Amino acid sequence: MNDFVNVGMIGYKFMGKAHSNAYRALPMFLPDVPKPRMTAICGRDEQAVRAAGQQFGWDSVETDWRALIARSDIDLVDINAPSDAHKEIALAAAAAGKHIFCEKPLALNLSDSREMLAAAQQAGVKHMVGFNYRFAPAVRLAKKLIEEGRLGRIYHFRGLFLQDWIMDPDFPLVWRLRKEVAGSGSLGDLGAHTIDLARYLVGEFDEVVGMTETFIKERPMPTEMTGLTAKGSADGPRGEVTVDDAAMFMARFDNGALGTFEATRFANGHRSTNFFEINGSKGSVRFDFERMNELEVYFSDDAEDVQGFRRVLATDAAHDYMHAWWPAGHTIGYEHTVTHEVHELMRAIAEDRQPVPNFSDGVKCQAVLEAVERSAAEKRWVSLREFDS
Amino acid sequence: MNDFVNVGMIGYKFMGKAHSNAYRALPMFLPDVPKPRMTAICGRDEQAVRAAGQQFGWDSVETDWRALIARSDIDLVDINAPSDAHKEIALAAAAAGKHIFCEKPLALNLSDSREMLAAAQQAGVKHMVGFNYRFAPAVRLAKKLIEEGRLGRIYHFRGLFLQDWIMDPDFPLVWRLRKEVAGSGSLGDLGAHTIDLARYLVGEFDEVVGMTETFIKERPMPTEMTGLTAKGSADGPRGEVTVDDAAMFMARFDNGALGTFEATRFANGHRSTNFFEINGSKGSVRFDFERMNELEVYFSDDAEDVQGFRRVLATDAAHDYMHAWWPAGHTIGYEHTVTHEVHELMRAIAEDRQPVPNFSDGVKCQAVLEAVERSAAEKRWVSLREFDS
Amino acid sequence: MNDFVNVGMIGYKFMGKAHSNAYRALPMFLPDVPKPRMTAICGRDEQAVRAAGQQFGWDSVETDWRALIARSDIDLVDINAPSDAHKEIALAAAAAGKHIFCEKPLALNLSDSREMLAAAQQAGVKHMVGFNYRFAPAVRLAKKLIEEGRLGRIYHFRGLFLQDWIMDPDFPLVWRLRKEVAGSGSLGDLGAHTIDLARYLVGEFDEVVGMTETFIKERPMPTEMTGLTAKGSADGPRGEVTVDDAAMFMARFDNGALGTFEATRFANGHRSTNFFEINGSKGSVRFDFERMNELEVYFSDDAEDVQGFRRVLATDAAHDYMHAWWPAGHTIGYEHTVTHEVHELMRAIAEDRQPVPNFSDGVKCQAVLEAVERSAAEKRWVSLREFDS
Amino acid sequence: MNDFVNVGMIGYKFMGKAHSNAYRALPMFLPDVPKPRMTAICGRDEQAVRAAGQQFGWDSVETDWRALIARSDIDLVDINAPSDAHKEIALAAAAAGKHIFCEKPLALNLSDSREMLAAAQQAGVKHMVGFNYRFAPAVRLAKKLIEEGRLGRIYHFRGLFLQDWIMDPDFPLVWRLRKEVAGSGSLGDLGAHTIDLARYLVGEFDEVVGMTETFIKERPMPTEMTGLTAKGSADGPRGEVTVDDAAMFMARFDNGALGTFEATRFANGHRSTNFFEINGSKGSVRFDFERMNELEVYFSDDAEDVQGFRRVLATDAAHDYMHAWWPAGHTIGYEHTVTHEVHELMRAIAEDRQPVPNFSDGVKCQAVLEAVERSAAEKRWVSLREFDS
Repeated sequence: MNDFVNVGMIGYKFMGKAHSNAYRALPMFLPDVPKPRMTAICGRDEQAVRAAGQQFGWDSVETDWRALIARSDIDLVDINAPSDAHKEIALAAAAAGKHIFCEKPLALNLSDSREMLAAAQQAGVKHMVGFNYRFAPAVRLAKKLIEEGRLGRIYHFRGLFLQDWIMDPDFPLVWRLRKEVAGSGSLGDLGAHTIDLARYLVGEFDEVVGMTETFIKERPMPTEMTGLTAKGSADGPRGEVTVDDAAMFMARFDNGALGTFEATRFANGHRSTNFFEINGSKGSVRFDFERMNELEVYFSDDAEDVQGFRRVLATDAAHDYMHAWWPAGHTIGYEHTVTHEVHELMRAIAEDRQPVPNFSDGVKCQAVLEAVERSAAEKRWVSLREFDS
Repeated sequence: MNDFVNVGMIGYKFMGKAHSNAYRALPMFLPDVPKPRMTAICGRDEQAVRAAGQQFGWDSVETDWRALIARSDIDLVDINAPSDAHKEIALAAAAAGKHIFCEKPLALNLSDSREMLAAAQQAGVKHMVGFNYRFAPAVRLAKKLIEEGRLGRIYHFRGLFLQDWIMDPDFPLVWRLRKEVAGSGSLGDLGAHTIDLARYLVGEFDEVVGMTETFIKERPMPTEMTGLTAKGSADGPRGEVTVDDAAMFMARFDNGALGTFEATRFANGHRSTNFFEINGSKGSVRFDFERMNELEVYFSDDAEDVQGFRRVLATDAAHDYMHAWWPAGHTIGYEHTVTHEVHELMRAIAEDRQPVPNFSDGVKCQAVLEAVERSAAEKRWVSLREFDS
Repeated sequence: MNDFVNVGMIGYKFMGKAHSNAYRALPMFLPDVPKPRMTAICGRDEQAVRAAGQQFGWDSVETDWRALIARSDIDLVDINAPSDAHKEIALAAAAAGKHIFCEKPLALNLSDSREMLAAAQQAGVKHMVGFNYRFAPAVRLAKKLIEEGRLGRIYHFRGLFLQDWIMDPDFPLVWRLRKEVAGSGSLGDLGAHTIDLARYLVGEFDEVVGMTETFIKERPMPTEMTGLTAKGSADGPRGEVTVDDAAMFMARFDNGALGTFEATRFANGHRSTNFFEINGSKGSVRFDFERMNELEVYFSDDAEDVQGFRRVLATDAAHDYMHAWWPAGHTIGYEHTVTHEVHELMRAIAEDRQPVPNFSDGVKCQAVLEAVERSAAEKRWVSLREFDS
Repeated sequence: MNDFVNVGMIGYKFMGKAHSNAYRALPMFLPDVPKPRMTAICGRDEQAVRAAGQQFGWDSVETDWRALIARSDIDLVDINAPSDAHKEIALAAAAAGKHIFCEKPLALNLSDSREMLAAAQQAGVKHMVGFNYRFAPAVRLAKKLIEEGRLGRIYHFRGLFLQDWIMDPDFPLVWRLRKEVAGSGSLGDLGAHTIDLARYLVGEFDEVVGMTETFIKERPMPTEMTGLTAKGSADGPRGEVTVDDAAMFMARFDNGALGTFEATRFANGHRSTNFFEINGSKGSVRFDFERMNELEVYFSDDAEDVQGFRRVLATDAAHDYMHAWWPAGHTIGYEHTVTHEVHELMRAIAEDRQPVPNFSDGVKCQAVLEAVERSAAEKRWVSLREFDS
């Protein structure tokens, strides 16, 4: 086993920053795995990527991702560029025998994501997909309770991912609102996370029925875009919004559980409510990412006079990953989920096994997304069997 | 205008008790309407109804509802017997020219409920249906905010009605679990309330797609039933559960808003979570019946550094009905929603207008229920147009 | 045992209304005790008391409380007139051999309250003091957990009673702000309740140190007072506020526990936050009257991965008094605490024992209030031993 | 202005780790200030400090703090060793002309802390004290609202710092429970933070009255201590606990506001509840560190039908420091408060001004702590004037 993994990262915006932070934090807080070396960062805008590279602490800069992949000192290619670039880069990285860490959604469609999985499998490299919410300690606790049977048979999953950042009709037409770049809107951006959590906690999907909506059909063309923000003139030219503002669907799981899902960017007051609740025959759990250190837990076998949802603050050493951080009661934040995720990736490389979640999870998530889209388009229930390869 | 309304009530269990309490409370707390006279209570079990009549304060007792309706000293017939009895009684009451206050669901199916509405209209009597949750002051506040345009254009409604009282597989096969008596399960019992709140707050339904499930297919036959509780032997004979344990559906409203709905009796830890959230272009509201004195309210035009959901305790005199009760900060409970409901009924009689909600609302709710059932049975979207009469 | 108790009530404002409601509700909801007969209501303003008597359902009216007490058809005298009238009426009622139900605070000072207790004891009548918050089912649950040892040794009590109804400096000088009528301000009005809850749940006080403050020293004289509201002219004459706006104190209990207390009418945003938390060696409980159906409960022997405060909704039949009301999950409100209180009074009369809390509790509470006042005046710790009689 | 500040840090446990993280994070997330160079880390146990130095990323190691201070390549001395070492190190650092960043409490007593302040002032170096909770964005928001007058005149401050980590009577006698090393118990460890927040938000103290208690008088001697945890044998020798388990006090502020304070390690269920509430004439705020991204805010001039505490999620770019981190709705954790604190230190060095809070704040906090201790010992109110130098 090597002590180091040399990373080449493509992308340097929101997720690039979160990944960089994880690579920096790992050796200090979770040093039991190979140390990621921040070898090279890559982006098309040389000035911008050079600034990011310096700020985030990367050793070198590339402006051509093919050059990055070609470098012999790169072990792992980290892809957090916009979604439409994922596939081509991943295929090239696999062909070059590099491990791959790709942000979600894995690709713009199911077919592409399958191609990526096949390529990674054929190349025998490690592959991971960035479903970071699995790595919140409170979510790990939910998983543990379910796996140990402490919630019993699962009857219900209800998941919400609610945001409100594009409710202003004059918010400009950024790339996330264009299908050719983003693949889909709230469904792929937000719903994909909820689908992954449902698969992780409840199991595989059987069939779905969904609907999508674009409330604001046209928006001003952006005149300026910097990172995550953008400006546009309300009086200037407008373009068509080609993704969904909101998506919701119902599902049956293979194990008989029922699920409801909603992803929207039009839920006023919700900055980033990533919520789920699971009801089982012996108990229930409830999670809201805005209070990510907490899991609400109910057990029906508690004494009858003191039954109620417990607010478990998952910051004790008894909870996954928390030994690495601060004393009990001292909370962690969003970025820690990414750090934990990278820890799993490094550990998997060290143990010569696939990390979890990997491209296979990305493909299965994409199949559900595609089933929902087909269902919404054709206004009918769609079985996941339709997508068996 | 008469000072009194003579009431004859059929049924004396949970809802009969709540209605009786309302009739008793009205003259003391909301005396600006005709006083309901508790003239006669009716039930088949003479001993039981006599005991209830004495305990609740009714002046006389009947054991045949036809006799009750025939009495000349009855102005208003209050129907809270099991659902399968609603129609016949209501038709007879209308024929006798009596006003009618009928519990929800109005009938076992849409056709019956239309017949009831037509009969009441033809007879020219007042008719009301018991959707009591409209009368929580916090819900009235939500209505007011929407009507005054303070939430803007409505994008989303999400409603839940979650209970857990039949999760034990050995809980017996009570009448609420038999289709021929109850009509449906969680859908009609719980979902009907949420549908009514959605209609009240958002507007009429356009189309729905739904699914239902019965998790526990067989249950012990009840050996004893007293009011709301029942006993059965786990080792004894079992019968088939013929209603849904859980029902969920999605909807489009006529005004373009999207809705998600879930009603279940299998949500462990939820004794009676009657929840809704509404997101509009200017703000949002959130309600949970377990904290019925509160409405959470968000306005997107609050100063940008202090935006957040407010927890409004709707107990000030500024809120509907609260002048009648206690000083600010002193909460009210479930039964008060029924008292407010009866106040609307008495006021409508005094003002010679139909109360709201009335049988027309009952019919429209029933149409949505039937659309959901058809959708679940046929696994397709169902338009409310299919039920145009 | 008699089937009835004939009640004569003096006072007809906020508390008179709450007591009347309790007398009306008891036979219907908690019929296992003698039925209170609403024989006579008494007040000085004949027109007003006659209106109240009719609205609340009293059989007759008196305008002279001595005449009321003299009536042979009165078994129980209910005193909810302003505090400065309590003593004289109670002494007369005791002398006439009537049972007494007196609102808190029992009297304007400790000496008077002792005189009242002695008179009641000498007369051999039943006596009760109106500490109604003991009768919230969630508070009963806290008591039960402590009595059963489930919280272990008690270390901490922290109690708050926060209101905000006189924060406007132009709110007029109502009688509650004048020492000669009210005895004290927030201390006696609000703090008295918290002291009683602390005594009920933790035990007797050993010593206290306190401070009081009057933030607004002068207020407009009231030009109009109706029930609980009042009007005054900001430009008109002003008078001196002679009671405390806020009072806070610390205490040691006989059993070694420590307590902190705060009562204020200047806590913006708090309509009526009656809060306490108790920490013991095995667990903790937390109560807030604005969510009076809930008790938060923590046990340190829960499994280490699921420790947390549980939100117990005390509406199940397993909780005191709740069998009388509605199904699980259906909440009750403020007035129910008074109804439960009256149930205890009727049961005590039937069982020929003193109700709890009685005048003895009123005296002990008054001793603590007086110790706090002395402490605030003399700026020193004051032992309850100083008040041993 | 230099681009770098060379840091020498003494101590490497909990706070040393938090400080190290801050030095590492600053250049990436808040790069507008001089970059801290992690030049040398110092501790007595060479093996342990060498391991920490490597893990945290320090360039070199010292085992004698005098040697560290003597190094010419050190600009800033960071003191997070146990409290009894603060004074000697700080005096030496000042004498050597080094800037000083010292953890709280500044010293074991007021006299020592004054000596430290004087030395730093005389040497003309920058000095900062580690009251990190000031740097939570939600706390900054509270400060901003008060400074802008949006809460009006302040009436009440109530602060709690509740923990439960030593409730087990067999938890061993660690150094934090010995007065000669720690100075005091919960008062200095937890209460000091609350005092600082009160000074920051409300103003200077006028007088206090307090009490302290040690519930468990003797504990097992520790047989093993590793970082923050320790082991001891319940059957082995025991030693006396010489600090307080709990401390509470009341205060008057110079501006007339009233305060209540409680610090305890015996509040079962509270891992680290650092709570305060402030009530002013125009509004209120409420903060709980376990939900550190939130501030509850109330304004009494909100429309009367929608008044209520708002839950403000202080993660928008409108809130201090949040532009540095993630998109709105993505929370931060405990360590970020320390990173923000170090940012203030670096900025102050760059701007050649004293950082806030500095040793002067440490001294003023220590005066309040000493006043509380004197008050508890002498059972009387103690004016801060008694401590005027």
